[in-house]
Amino acid sequence: MPLGSDYEGQNCSLARSLEVVGERWTLLILRDLFLGVRRFSELRAHLDIPPAVLSARLARLVDHGLVERRPYRPGRDELLPTGCALELWPAVYALLQWGDRHQGADGGPRRLFAHAGCGTDLDGTGACPTCERVPEVAEIVTRPGPGKPSVVRSDPVSRALRRPHRLLTPLG
Amino acid sequence: MPLGSDYEGQNCSLARSLEVVGERWTLLILRDLFLGVRRFSELRAHLDIPPAVLSARLARLVDHGLVERRPYRPGRDELLPTGCALELWPAVYALLQWGDRHQGADGGPRRLFAHAGCGTDLDGTGACPTCERVPEVAEIVTRPGPGKPSVVRSDPVSRALRRPHRLLTPLG
Repeated sequence: MPLGSDYEGQNCSLARSLEVVGERWTLLILRDLFLGVRRFSELRAHLDIPPAVLSARLARLVDHGLVERRPYRPGRDELLPTGCALELWPAVYALLQWGDRHQGADGGPRRLFAHAGCGTDLDGTGACPTCERVPEVAEIVTRPGPGKPSVVRSDPVSRALRRPHRLLTPLG
Repeated sequence: MPLGSDYEGQNCSLARSLEVVGERWTLLILRDLFLGVRRFSELRAHLDIPPAVLSARLARLVDHGLVERRPYRPGRDELLPTGCALELWPAVYALLQWGDRHQGADGGPRRLFAHAGCGTDLDGTGACPTCERVPEVAEIVTRPGPGKPSVVRSDPVSRALRRPHRLLTPLG
């Protein structure tokens, strides 16, 4: 069986999910869209990937209804995560948490997430301990954590994310 | 940048997680270990992947401390998920739920998960609505859901999973 992007023989919803978001870079592209990145050039500079790979991944996300293109001036589209994409936030957050615990940086988490409404940091399940509920993605504010960066990047997205920023709010 | 398995330029815990579990097949191997698959030959038959790919993925999981090999007879090891691997359950469950909702089968979820202690089906966040807590992996019982299988498999793992089965309990 070739190492393509499908798992035809697997009768499983995990396999179906991975057919859509399991390709290399795809979850990092979605992470950036959650953070508020909206433009191809910003994604490319922040992710540091070949434009052909980024185009292919975005085309697949558009085909599967996770990303919408919306013209912001003639010939230029911005990229918006759909409701279907936003429902992947729990999976992305769970992988972030696991990475912090098991593949962590010196000093602690690299990035922190708080409930915008009350300012409380989310717990390991993505819930707000003060309000005892799981906030929507747009109700979450992220800020750099105490973990030492493995690399200091200077692209506009990386610079903008050094300050607290509400998810889904356009960056830059 | 080559499409390897690392994301060197990404100062992010999601990228670190994906370096360990983002390769093709790796999350499906972990899913099988959560389900109670313990042997290379069972994994190979259930996943239907080339043995060289399975060996490479397992070696990486052992290297990163997610899988332990334990001899069960001379020259034969069984494969056990470590505590570190079990902490990926929320991410796997979130991807399963998303797959059910957005890449679903005719008729509903392909597989259901219940809290063994009280028999209540888990909610979308992986919590037991009756006990109002998130059960440990070993406290979860899975059974086939109403969703129509896209393929009917006859390997021993697929056959064993047609009946209710407690996670982490060896299959077959």
